[in-house]
Amino acid sequence: MHNRAAVMYDTHDIRLEERPIPEPGPKEVLVEIRAVGVCGSDVHYYEEGRIGSFVVEEPLILGHESMGTVVTVGDEATKHEVGERVTLEPGVPDMTCRECRAGRYNLCPNVRFFATPPIDGAFTNYVAIHEDFAYALPDNLSDNAGALMEPLSVGIWACRKAGVKAGDHVLVTGAGPIGLLAMQVALAQGATEVTITDVSPQRLELAEKTGATRAINVSEEPLTGVEVDALIECSGNERALGDGIRSIRPAGIGVVVGMGPGEESRIPLSLIQNKEIWLTGTFRYANTYPAAIELAATGKVNLDAIVTGYYGLEDAEEALQASRKDPANVKPMVVPNR
Amino acid sequence: MHNRAAVMYDTHDIRLEERPIPEPGPKEVLVEIRAVGVCGSDVHYYEEGRIGSFVVEEPLILGHESMGTVVTVGDEATKHEVGERVTLEPGVPDMTCRECRAGRYNLCPNVRFFATPPIDGAFTNYVAIHEDFAYALPDNLSDNAGALMEPLSVGIWACRKAGVKAGDHVLVTGAGPIGLLAMQVALAQGATEVTITDVSPQRLELAEKTGATRAINVSEEPLTGVEVDALIECSGNERALGDGIRSIRPAGIGVVVGMGPGEESRIPLSLIQNKEIWLTGTFRYANTYPAAIELAATGKVNLDAIVTGYYGLEDAEEALQASRKDPANVKPMVVPNR
Amino acid sequence: MHNRAAVMYDTHDIRLEERPIPEPGPKEVLVEIRAVGVCGSDVHYYEEGRIGSFVVEEPLILGHESMGTVVTVGDEATKHEVGERVTLEPGVPDMTCRECRAGRYNLCPNVRFFATPPIDGAFTNYVAIHEDFAYALPDNLSDNAGALMEPLSVGIWACRKAGVKAGDHVLVTGAGPIGLLAMQVALAQGATEVTITDVSPQRLELAEKTGATRAINVSEEPLTGVEVDALIECSGNERALGDGIRSIRPAGIGVVVGMGPGEESRIPLSLIQNKEIWLTGTFRYANTYPAAIELAATGKVNLDAIVTGYYGLEDAEEALQASRKDPANVKPMVVPNR
Amino acid sequence: MHNRAAVMYDTHDIRLEERPIPEPGPKEVLVEIRAVGVCGSDVHYYEEGRIGSFVVEEPLILGHESMGTVVTVGDEATKHEVGERVTLEPGVPDMTCRECRAGRYNLCPNVRFFATPPIDGAFTNYVAIHEDFAYALPDNLSDNAGALMEPLSVGIWACRKAGVKAGDHVLVTGAGPIGLLAMQVALAQGATEVTITDVSPQRLELAEKTGATRAINVSEEPLTGVEVDALIECSGNERALGDGIRSIRPAGIGVVVGMGPGEESRIPLSLIQNKEIWLTGTFRYANTYPAAIELAATGKVNLDAIVTGYYGLEDAEEALQASRKDPANVKPMVVPNR
Repeated sequence: MHNRAAVMYDTHDIRLEERPIPEPGPKEVLVEIRAVGVCGSDVHYYEEGRIGSFVVEEPLILGHESMGTVVTVGDEATKHEVGERVTLEPGVPDMTCRECRAGRYNLCPNVRFFATPPIDGAFTNYVAIHEDFAYALPDNLSDNAGALMEPLSVGIWACRKAGVKAGDHVLVTGAGPIGLLAMQVALAQGATEVTITDVSPQRLELAEKTGATRAINVSEEPLTGVEVDALIECSGNERALGDGIRSIRPAGIGVVVGMGPGEESRIPLSLIQNKEIWLTGTFRYANTYPAAIELAATGKVNLDAIVTGYYGLEDAEEALQASRKDPANVKPMVVPNR
Repeated sequence: MHNRAAVMYDTHDIRLEERPIPEPGPKEVLVEIRAVGVCGSDVHYYEEGRIGSFVVEEPLILGHESMGTVVTVGDEATKHEVGERVTLEPGVPDMTCRECRAGRYNLCPNVRFFATPPIDGAFTNYVAIHEDFAYALPDNLSDNAGALMEPLSVGIWACRKAGVKAGDHVLVTGAGPIGLLAMQVALAQGATEVTITDVSPQRLELAEKTGATRAINVSEEPLTGVEVDALIECSGNERALGDGIRSIRPAGIGVVVGMGPGEESRIPLSLIQNKEIWLTGTFRYANTYPAAIELAATGKVNLDAIVTGYYGLEDAEEALQASRKDPANVKPMVVPNR
Repeated sequence: MHNRAAVMYDTHDIRLEERPIPEPGPKEVLVEIRAVGVCGSDVHYYEEGRIGSFVVEEPLILGHESMGTVVTVGDEATKHEVGERVTLEPGVPDMTCRECRAGRYNLCPNVRFFATPPIDGAFTNYVAIHEDFAYALPDNLSDNAGALMEPLSVGIWACRKAGVKAGDHVLVTGAGPIGLLAMQVALAQGATEVTITDVSPQRLELAEKTGATRAINVSEEPLTGVEVDALIECSGNERALGDGIRSIRPAGIGVVVGMGPGEESRIPLSLIQNKEIWLTGTFRYANTYPAAIELAATGKVNLDAIVTGYYGLEDAEEALQASRKDPANVKPMVVPNR
Repeated sequence: MHNRAAVMYDTHDIRLEERPIPEPGPKEVLVEIRAVGVCGSDVHYYEEGRIGSFVVEEPLILGHESMGTVVTVGDEATKHEVGERVTLEPGVPDMTCRECRAGRYNLCPNVRFFATPPIDGAFTNYVAIHEDFAYALPDNLSDNAGALMEPLSVGIWACRKAGVKAGDHVLVTGAGPIGLLAMQVALAQGATEVTITDVSPQRLELAEKTGATRAINVSEEPLTGVEVDALIECSGNERALGDGIRSIRPAGIGVVVGMGPGEESRIPLSLIQNKEIWLTGTFRYANTYPAAIELAATGKVNLDAIVTGYYGLEDAEEALQASRKDPANVKPMVVPNR
């Protein structure tokens, strides 16, 4: 067994190197990684070297949308067997702070999250993780689907915050992987009209193929005449957010998932007041993995539909550049043992 | 134009007679009824002459799951046109009481509800109703579907109370029309496992055909090994309720839709305490019709699938007896202008 | 009986004139006004001639925080007797629109609201109002208290949205009448720490006298070291809002009550995302009057404590100028029959 | 240092014996107990030897409402100092199960809870506890108050479930210590009318002294004419529960805190349906201690008011018999180092 890793040394500088195989702790399992999705945040670290206050100061392994096969089980770990395919929830919280005790473990200030400095991620052959954060995958799910439980969780979390229910109308702004999956979850949760916006014709086409009832290219036509129960903002674009908020019905909900460029944003606050709209944001997710796995396993969401390319570990850098080069390359996958 | 009506004079005594065509008030529309579903409550009045404190003391027209065509529009009514197909929300509240002002108009103590003494229902050719309680039907929906927006609303309301969301496991006890439709709504709202119970093999078969992931004949096998996020009790049976509550996970929700025989019931209260389960019931529904129409129009629920027979107005009594004679006759429809 | 009214003809132009006594409709009561609070929105109309899209284009009677004595009862009105002291809820919604049916009657697009063009307000001797929007006052409440049920309702509504509960820490930004009353409601609803900010020492002093556990003059010291479950923003100031949002704990709630100068505002959106804060606003209130009356009658809030001056109808213009001239004059009252 | 303990060997058999002083684990603190309240569940174990499925099979130390002084701090514990007065949250959950991850740690199936077989309680001189479940007490709180944070937490939890807010009317059935404290919390959380019922004149008198707006001796007069937003049932009596549910307004909430004699109870289920009442129960509490301490420290609740007697460790048995002998002896305290 060797453990190779695609290590980010600096912006635009990824190096393939040999790393020791991690030793799983007593409650951990060692997982041989089989598939890792490339996320916008990986791309952001690769290009900018930081996301907000998180700065890459030491060599860092990127990748946090991952799955693999259990190869070793820690002495006190009882939940998994060698050979089991598992998907990995990439953030392990402390489970003692106020947020964890209140069930908001995604807001734990001490969480250790894959590919967030200084914690390494999954563009590597082997990863050790606490057994509670690995989840068995049903046989009818592909490796890709297993890895994409992570962005699916983001979509589930957004739809939970949005309170989507049968008969709702939903607006998703931004048809990247998160927007596309949030859209599928909204449909699975009963939305009867889901409008999605983007500026990429290919992404909008994919949105329509995967269920959007209306797709609007906002570089060509304005977003008008839409009144929705919930907005799920996935573009990180201030104008999309403003137009989105203007589309929310009285007492509706806006959930901001996409991250904008700075700390502050301009929003139509008077509308939030006059229509008593609720606005919130999501930071990762909590308690979503079991639902994610079932939604995919029952066919209520289709994760394979958004996979657009495969890359070996040695091509991780190419994978990180893929989406920017071609917006149609929505979800490149890194396959470490290719 | 003649207005015939199937009038209940006493238990087991329905008579077809001529009635004056109602004169719509200024904000009302006159509707020619085209389809009416037979509901368990109609059957109950027919057989017992009362439901709880509601007693049939004067001749009463039954039927409250109805749709038809607008034939006259009141002077001040502006929402509908002659010729429009509409489904009728059968309860018109006062919109001034505390409950109405709080948005709980289904709990209005002064509501006038079809086929609830002394208010007449829809087993007749013509009905006048406030324009706000008639809703236009899309062309792709059948007359049956239009009439069945009413029991679908019951299912939607139950699922709203149950808070069904993507990935939930749901137990529906009782596979009559309400149970079958609540089940479909639960699936449409994202439930990935829906277990349904009944004692009729035909009803369970229909449940499986329309989406149940598991159907249990509780006359043959006990309800065990099921842990659900939400119970939707649609049988009115005390034992089903008890077994259902025992199946709810900690902090889960039980929604009692089916009406039992008396005012009181025995329930496993200690479980409600130890697991902090929330138990509630539904009384009709509020603000459900737009969602109901969209769920049916988008194919997320299939209303035609539960229709099992057609009866003219002159056969209304036969329609009222149909379900009891044959449990497989889940939803007999009365077609007044047949 | 004469009916005098202080009528706004233009900005800074109030004229006292004789008006016909209104004829109450069948479900209305005629009320002789005894006390009216001056609200910031009255001042805004007086100074700017408009609030957002509401423009004073015809002569308008200002004043919407009012109480009085019933002098005539409409033919079909049954809820009040001549001589009864009543407080008036100044907005009468249509009770048929989607918002009203959902219980959000404050968001009714067709509401007729006192002193909002073109609907006249209460700086006058006689007003007619639907009986459902007049509420009997207990004898132990002063006329002032009766009139101030309106701003108290704003505070109650804000605290309901904020979900204040026993043991919560709350930040109120802005110690004008709304901030002061929201603060009192937060304390009454169990908050154990309520920090209030303003730039007026007199207002902050009043805040401390009426229960604030900490009062910060933000013109002198920055708002730091405060972490709250809920923010209630009552200043309309963008910086106060930003600093307030920065003070909200993870998953806490911010309620924006104060109106800013424009449609848009800059807010620290990334914090709302990273801490999953919920932000909303209030527009008036719904279903608050019974609670308001009881809170005052039981002494849980003290409305008289914020009254700072009395003006006859002929001095209404002076009353409208009072707060701007002297920030300590928090709540001037107009007493029409003085 | 010696460690004495009042050990229950069998029903009606408490023996004072010497026990080894517990060795605190690395994250634990050793606490010298100064005050312990006697709870109804202690009495129940003493008299019946069991509560539901929890059976006293080995000698057990009772007592779980406790506070004391930190005397030793574990190697890795950082939150407390020697000499600090602390109140003890008596249940330590596993923080890894589904319930804990969702923030419902009170429903953790693996919780280790004081005085619940086979876990020992606090009728002893020394107890070791995880540092996260000890909370520093402000100086202005008495030892009694420190111990009674536990039953206060039960009251807070009930009021959270009941959603008590400003202006609410609340019914508390049962004026034992839990009912009395739930009542105080309801008042602190804004309830303007709190009716309390019991059959003991002394308990009702204490209720009135501590804030009840109405106290009804249901052995003398029936509970009628009360309509409340929330019921908090603290008597464990089926009739009180039934009458209580009949007093809940449409869409109100009933919270069952008192434990009945068996697994099942008869309830007026048809009312729960027709009025869409929400019924739930409480099992201990979660995330309440910080709020409890602040409510007491700010004087919003008065814990000392319910203390009715003091007993040394050698008189623990007498303390356990006190309430049954004299219902006015609402809350006997065991003071181990007396």
